[in-house]
Amino acid sequence: MTSKRIAVVENILSANDQLAEENRRRLDDAGVFALNVMASPGAGKTSLIEQTVQRLAGQLRVGVIEGDLATSIDAERAEAAGAVSVQINTGGNCHLEAPMVRDALAQLPLNDLDLLIVENVGNLVCPAGWKLGTHLNVLVASVPEGADKPYKYPGMYNGVDILVVNKIDLLPYVTFDMDFFKRGVEILNPGVTTFPVSCRTGDGLEAWLAWVQDSVAAYRQPS
Amino acid sequence: MTSKRIAVVENILSANDQLAEENRRRLDDAGVFALNVMASPGAGKTSLIEQTVQRLAGQLRVGVIEGDLATSIDAERAEAAGAVSVQINTGGNCHLEAPMVRDALAQLPLNDLDLLIVENVGNLVCPAGWKLGTHLNVLVASVPEGADKPYKYPGMYNGVDILVVNKIDLLPYVTFDMDFFKRGVEILNPGVTTFPVSCRTGDGLEAWLAWVQDSVAAYRQPS
Repeated sequence: MTSKRIAVVENILSANDQLAEENRRRLDDAGVFALNVMASPGAGKTSLIEQTVQRLAGQLRVGVIEGDLATSIDAERAEAAGAVSVQINTGGNCHLEAPMVRDALAQLPLNDLDLLIVENVGNLVCPAGWKLGTHLNVLVASVPEGADKPYKYPGMYNGVDILVVNKIDLLPYVTFDMDFFKRGVEILNPGVTTFPVSCRTGDGLEAWLAWVQDSVAAYRQPS
Repeated sequence: MTSKRIAVVENILSANDQLAEENRRRLDDAGVFALNVMASPGAGKTSLIEQTVQRLAGQLRVGVIEGDLATSIDAERAEAAGAVSVQINTGGNCHLEAPMVRDALAQLPLNDLDLLIVENVGNLVCPAGWKLGTHLNVLVASVPEGADKPYKYPGMYNGVDILVVNKIDLLPYVTFDMDFFKRGVEILNPGVTTFPVSCRTGDGLEAWLAWVQDSVAAYRQPS
């Protein structure tokens, strides 16, 4: 990149970070714990959100912000699962930015929510660089993507707080070297909390849901 | 985006397009037909390239340019399959640009090649906007990604010349509404040539390989 290009990008990032901090304050004022869910296209972000909303119905009130280039397919799925949802169409942008989330927050009944899940645009590169104001970053990997993804997308794997490995029901039908995958994750993000799940069969979801509930509870009652 | 940001982006794109034209001239001078292969992370770009190189060995001399954020895993796979390959590490950049391809072309024995395959960074958004100088754009979709991807990544589906639908061997094990998928493709890219394949089982690869051979032959002998 030219230095002019770098300077412009840095200015944009800095403005974004300030707005992300404002979003965080807004969430904290309302007592809403927020996750930023990132993944490749088709890894199962929306399925994980659907399962989370459905299975925690009656226990947690969940809001969902759906980020997509186009369509409202995901927001409709989240609503059908029982969430209050807002769709952001980025109009071609490859990741969410803090101002988009700010506008979406304004449309949500934050005081009535316990948990907010932001579904980022499907992309293993660009979303990693943009803070949104959420409390934790969750990466959804998926078995059919192949075991080399940590090595090939290190910025994303390095920067997340939680790793969900979805579609474990497909392990018998694809080539996926779990040891190679885990080694890559361990190099980039030692000790990261990991949940192997299948949103299709429900396998492993209990541990994930327990973590979500515990996290919301811990957020509400800081020691 | 601010107008300043738009102006900078437009200047960069215009400079890129000029270099893409130079790359094209270089390929045409050497008589090398070139494909730009794009996809989500893990859809099977490298597997398709491996299969193509191996199965056309002795018939076409293939060069491969591998674009990745990091590692040389893919270049090693392409070399092992029998291609001459060059790895581009983008250093975090989410797509290939024409200058990167120019530098890679300088490292390839173009006069000894029939076909060049450029494997872009795994990303369904950003690569679509950047010309590289290749002759055709190939998108590799994959069944486990789900059937809604054309609707959600319209810029990519709209801009490609060829669509390969990989991992059809997983159709019995996942939810994939082929009619819904095809309808989305047809809206965005009517009549686009499509190859359903499984790089794992070899299903459908013959039609793809015949298309590659016919395309190289047609390029060599324009009417």
